[in-house]
Parts: sequence; C-alpha cells; structure tokens
Amino acid sequence: MKPSPHMDRALAEAERAQARGEVPIGAVLVDSVNGSVVAADGNRVVEQHDPTAHAEMLVLRAASAALGSERLGTLDLYVTLEPCAMCAAALALARVRRVVYGAPDPKGGGVEHGARIFAQPTTHHRPEVVAGVGEARAAELLRTFFQSRR
Amino acid sequence: MKPSPHMDRALAEAERAQARGEVPIGAVLVDSVNGSVVAADGNRVVEQHDPTAHAEMLVLRAASAALGSERLGTLDLYVTLEPCAMCAAALALARVRRVVYGAPDPKGGGVEHGARIFAQPTTHHRPEVVAGVGEARAAELLRTFFQSRR
Repeated sequence: MKPSPHMDRALAEAERAQARGEVPIGAVLVDSVNGSVVAADGNRVVEQHDPTAHAEMLVLRAASAALGSERLGTLDLYVTLEPCAMCAAALALARVRRVVYGAPDPKGGGVEHGARIFAQPTTHHRPEVVAGVGEARAAELLRTFFQSRR
Repeated sequence: MKPSPHMDRALAEAERAQARGEVPIGAVLVDSVNGSVVAADGNRVVEQHDPTAHAEMLVLRAASAALGSERLGTLDLYVTLEPCAMCAAALALARVRRVVYGAPDPKGGGVEHGARIFAQPTTHHRPEVVAGVGEARAAELLRTFFQSRR
C-alpha cells in the first residue's frame, strides 16, 4: 500500500482522540483540487456528550462552516475506520467526492456492512470508495484501545 | 388519529423552519417519564450551511448537551417526516426510546424505506416506531413548500 499523508494525519487525529478518552477514530477532509486539509478532527462523543460527534460528522460540519456551503462535492474524506450508517448518510448528503478509509467495521460499519448506505437506490450521492488505506495501523489502534478497556 | 400535543409542537417547529427558508421539518424530544419537552427545533441546513443540521440531529445534540449524556434512552422523538438514514442511525446511537413521525418519505426516508436502519442486524438499538401521527398536516406543509419552489 502506498503511503498516504492524509491518512497519516487521520491516524494522528485518532491518537489524539484516544488521549482525550475517546474511541480512537480520526478523519480529515481534503480539497481534491489543491490537496489542502480543510478540516481534521477525532471523535468527541464523550467530551461533548454528543452521540453524533463522530470524527466524520465533526469534519463535515467544520468544512461546511469554513466553506459556507452544505455541499462539499470537491472534498475527499480520509477516515481511519469504515464510517457508520449515520456518517455515511451524512457524507452522501454533503456530496463528498471520495471516501478513503482504513479498517473495515463488520459490527458498526455502514458502507460495506449493515445498511450499505451508498448502495441504496435512495442514496443522494455515491462517493468513490477506497478501503484499506492505513488499515493495519487503524485496526491496531482500535484493538489496543478496546483491550485496555476490558 | 388522536391529537398529539408533541406532534403539534413539531409541526409548529416545521412552520418556523419554513419561515427561515428551510425545508419545513420539525422535531421534538420529550421526556417519556414526565412528558416535558427537552429540545425542539426545525431544519437549519441552509442557515448553518451544515448538511447534518436536520431537525432530528439538532434536537439530539441539544438534548445530549442539556442532559450531559450521549445516551437518551428515556426520551421519545416526535418528528414531522420519516427520518432519513443519517438521523435514524443517530437516533439508534442515542438509544432514543420511541420514534413518532408524521409523513412517510419514500424518496429520502431511512426507517420504512431505503436503508431501513432499525431493521439492520447491526443496528445499535431498535426504537419503538409509530408512523402517521399528524401525517396530513406534515405532508401538506411539505407539498406546499416544494410547489412554491418550482
């Protein structure tokens, strides 16, 4: 797998989330035209007492605010774990161009598992999906995290 | 159909959303123990330039903040339209007790249409679902809104 600086940044956000006591998941939204990072964050569910404060939702909201638009068709998402159904549906609503993720999530994922949001005939948009980028590191982060909580 | 003061409140929030230039959808989260309204709001996608600012998401976030918890297992949601997949998945993450909605949404709904979030084996939680409460008024609001935009 070729190196991905944007996935490295997402993994760094996942580590920062873990240091805050969150599930270690990080996400970055990147301008596909010039490669600049528009928003980067990790989970903040615990900190914000907010069930919707997944990394993907936080960067979607930050990027929409920064760009003054609820449509983000030129942006690519890098996220360490397969997005859940909530986040996948939000990415479709925002028309995000491409979704690049690290580890698959058979239990909670909503892209290649469960609700398979982008495969629904009713989806508003089908981002290009690239799976498995930085998968080993993302999976190791999550494995270590859940082992430490047992 | 028996009257529902909470759905009346959700419909009033939908009308306020329309007055702000939003799609007329309103939502209320109610404490199922004492019947008090914990949060009420309408869509703010346009106002906040936020693709995730659906009425349901806004009341989930407001209620979580007010109660200091990301789990809302004692709350019931009243919403004028069938929730989309994003909102349905968020309601499952928050463990909302009951989802009462007005009009079905064959194009964008994620409860009885499309991703059918609560029917997925991987859903975190299955709220009780009650459909068709205040349906005629909710559907009329949306019909009038979309006709006026053509």
